[in-house]
Formats: sequence, C-alpha cells, structure tokens
Amino acid sequence: MSRADLAAKTCSLARAVEIVGDGWTLMILREMFLGVRRFDEFQRQTGASPALVSGRLRKMEEAGLIRRIAYSEHPPRFEYRLTDMGKALWPAIIALKTWGDDWVEGPVDGTTDSWATPVEIIHKSCGAVVAPQMTCPDCGEAMAAHDAHARLSAPFFSERRAAQKAPTQKS
Amino acid sequence: MSRADLAAKTCSLARAVEIVGDGWTLMILREMFLGVRRFDEFQRQTGASPALVSGRLRKMEEAGLIRRIAYSEHPPRFEYRLTDMGKALWPAIIALKTWGDDWVEGPVDGTTDSWATPVEIIHKSCGAVVAPQMTCPDCGEAMAAHDAHARLSAPFFSERRAAQKAPTQKS
Repeated sequence: MSRADLAAKTCSLARAVEIVGDGWTLMILREMFLGVRRFDEFQRQTGASPALVSGRLRKMEEAGLIRRIAYSEHPPRFEYRLTDMGKALWPAIIALKTWGDDWVEGPVDGTTDSWATPVEIIHKSCGAVVAPQMTCPDCGEAMAAHDAHARLSAPFFSERRAAQKAPTQKS
Repeated sequence: MSRADLAAKTCSLARAVEIVGDGWTLMILREMFLGVRRFDEFQRQTGASPALVSGRLRKMEEAGLIRRIAYSEHPPRFEYRLTDMGKALWPAIIALKTWGDDWVEGPVDGTTDSWATPVEIIHKSCGAVVAPQMTCPDCGEAMAAHDAHARLSAPFFSERRAAQKAPTQKS
C-alpha cells in the first residue's frame, strides 16, 4: 500500500494524515499560525529548501488548506493564507505543541532549570496564559485517552475485520 | 537542514513533529489507541510492510512512546503498549481525526447523504457521544485559532529574528 491509498480509506484519521502527516507540512502550518505568509520567510524559518517549500505549498493549496493571493503584479509575487479548512487544524497543532512542551526535552531555561516553553498561548477573551485542553463538549470535563471509548461504525468495523483475516505481506 | 535538526530546535512543536510527524507512525498510534498490540496486526490494519512497521516501532520505542513486553518465551514473541508519553498523544490524534471527519471527504454514508464518521468517541464518565474540543482550562470556553494569541519566548524570538536576516538557500 502506498501513502496515497490512505486517503481512500474509511478512517478519517487516515485521510487527515494523508494531507498533513508530514513534518515539513506541519512546520509550514506552524509558520502560518505565527502569521508568516511569504515564501522566503517559510524557507528561512523552517530551513527547508525552495523545492521543498514550493512542493508542500502546492500540495497544501490543492488540498484546500491555503490560498495564494497576488500582492504584486510586476514582478508577480504571492502570499499564502490559511483557508477555514487550514485554520481548523489549529487544535491539532496546539495538541502537538503542548505534547512537545510536556514530554520532549528541549533547551533548558536558565531561570527555572526546566526546558522553556517557546510559545505561550494567551486566550484573548479571558486573558489567561493557557495550555488549551481537550474537553467533552457535553459535560465540560477534560478528556484523556482513558476517558474515551471508541465505537467503530459498521463499515469501518467490517473493513478492519476483513484486514484481520488477510495474509500479512512478506516484504 | 535535515529532519533530525528539528529535534534540537527551541520550538516544542518541531520537537514533537520530529517524533510523530510521519504518516506511518500516526497510523500505528491509531492502532494502539484502538487496542492493537501485536506486530502482525499493525501490519494488517495499516497495510505497511514488515520492514516499515518494525522501523517505526523501533523509533517509537527509542523515543519512549511505547514499550515492548514479551508474551511468549518459546518462541520469543512481543507485544507493544503505549507508555504515558505515548498515551499523552491522544489529544493530537483526536484533533486530527475530528478535522478529518469535518473537512476531508470520505466514503458516503448511505443513510445520511454525508460521509460517515468511522469512529465515534464516547465520554465514559458522562456517556455522551462527542467530538472532544480544545478549550481554555481557565474559563472553560472552546478555543479556535482566532481566539488565541501566541507570545514568543525571548530565545525563540531571537532565533526567529536571526533566521529572518539569514540569506535563503538557493537549492
């Protein structure tokens, strides 16, 4: 199976991963959420080559995550902005950032003897500096892995049962 | 810059992406959150080759996301379980799944004329079927991209300002 096959799958996570399950795409999304809009700046801030940046931007535009807007006609120059579909990835980016803050050792903060939080998130409406958390929209409680039960749809259940019976690949 | 360099960066998102910003790793994490523990089953359910699965599992074990437990001595057989560090990725996986449910077209659900949600999340303590959402732990409001302001730490700000002044790569 190639990565492209993931997109055809019943699983919505697999479809999401096909579009954004790539390190450079996630780094370009970081830049866009930090307000960066121009090609050179994506390149400078991510350290990616021009070919890499333009390949990822093209794929992101095709998928509908970003749109390209001309800001100069002579010479032709473009900037890139997140669409609503792209902005809707904010919770995923924040969840990864928070996990990195909590679990992956970084440069030590000289003042606190722990590693530093490079970006603080401020909730505009209440002013608090926060680590946004996943909660149940029904009861408002914070949710973690052990608080959730996953119920598979009939098509996804059938797809997985068929896979269970299939022989495994040998190479 | 290579992908490995991301891990040394000040940015905690970059460090997270270095570990899990890979489609197959995310698919193996999906399997683990669905309760799968054995090598053959990872292979069957993700469609990855044995070499791919074993490479990803080794990297995940080295990073501390999973641990390997022997369940048979003759022949030696292992199963894989998420560590606390691995389980802490649940919000990121759920955020990506929810985004896929909301934004990426999948197989159509014959009964509703929209695409189906392959996995429903049930909040164990209140029993509701929910799409968990990012909220502010301080005031309890749901948060999206436009509700948040990002404040950069001094080291991260300096790192980014230095990158702004650097010449861009030409290839």
